[in-house]
Amino acid sequence: MTAVSNKIIDRLTLYHCILKYTVKGQEFISSSEIADLLNLDASSVRKDIALCGVLGHNKQGYAVSLLKKAIEAKLGFSDCKEVFIIGAGSLGTALIKYADFKDYGINILGLFDNDPDKIGREIGGKKVVSLEKLESLIARISVKNVILAVPADCAQEVADYAIKCGVKFIWNFTPVVLRVPKEVTVYYENIVSSFMQMRNA
Amino acid sequence: MTAVSNKIIDRLTLYHCILKYTVKGQEFISSSEIADLLNLDASSVRKDIALCGVLGHNKQGYAVSLLKKAIEAKLGFSDCKEVFIIGAGSLGTALIKYADFKDYGINILGLFDNDPDKIGREIGGKKVVSLEKLESLIARISVKNVILAVPADCAQEVADYAIKCGVKFIWNFTPVVLRVPKEVTVYYENIVSSFMQMRNA
Repeated sequence: MTAVSNKIIDRLTLYHCILKYTVKGQEFISSSEIADLLNLDASSVRKDIALCGVLGHNKQGYAVSLLKKAIEAKLGFSDCKEVFIIGAGSLGTALIKYADFKDYGINILGLFDNDPDKIGREIGGKKVVSLEKLESLIARISVKNVILAVPADCAQEVADYAIKCGVKFIWNFTPVVLRVPKEVTVYYENIVSSFMQMRNA
Repeated sequence: MTAVSNKIIDRLTLYHCILKYTVKGQEFISSSEIADLLNLDASSVRKDIALCGVLGHNKQGYAVSLLKKAIEAKLGFSDCKEVFIIGAGSLGTALIKYADFKDYGINILGLFDNDPDKIGREIGGKKVVSLEKLESLIARISVKNVILAVPADCAQEVADYAIKCGVKFIWNFTPVVLRVPKEVTVYYENIVSSFMQMRNA
């Protein structure tokens, strides 16, 4: 994917959501229609879409199916990233059921937990695997990305263990800022910040 | 809360997470320690903290407890916003269990669903109420904010119903961009965008 700013990623993903859900069945869509749905300026919408190499049709707007594919190409939906989810509680379950991740280039290979009541259960089409197996699985299939969806009080401990197993990238859904070595990257899903931004909107 | 940009809200909430979880039990913290944890510049951290009216102690840094309270005051944690959650599935359950929302000024008054198997169940200390009761509850207690945590395929229908019941503000955790009247505000929790940003990080 050619580099775009996070703000543009934000907008393009929302346009994609519009094309996928809001106007499902519609053949064309105008920049004004997108702009109205998101309280944006139609000319900004057109600029974003131009980044994806798509031109509109006079009076008709953009072909929905074409625009959807162009955004997917721009954002690199087909460049698959493989991840494990650690934590098969409410949060891990919600994430695995949230969206067709594969459509977005995220392939969830497995769901881990250390709760004996959860291990072996099937959630969102995946069997919950014991966290003890993380090290051997990482060694075998060389996937080093995890989504951390465990309770706050064990987040650091589980992260330490995951890093010891070879994890290099953590998408952190817990509210805990983690201590990690320099070679490990943590991406914060800052839900508390969203609370604050929403509260003050 | 005096207005701060969303980027500053982002950083201040992460500092707060550090003070609440990462350095729990520690009496002082330096701007360098915060900066190292988040790959930020220590001088930027000091600038943010100065916005909260807190000064550091020479050689010791900031008093953790004082700094935590100052961030809470700056972000208005005590200005309570009351919300309902619509959707008692995995996502709604994960949200209600995610954090002590009350600590962040969000008071979840109720959890709604239209699934007879869920109605009456207790989740995260709240009893799931039938969605049919939303209108009378809004009329009675005058709370017009909802968190939408329903499946994508019914998001628009449920939003339409909630708006008919009097809802004016929707924090939308579904991947659906909603069609709403001008007087209703939708705040998008753009998890798909986070996927994309993480994938490309």
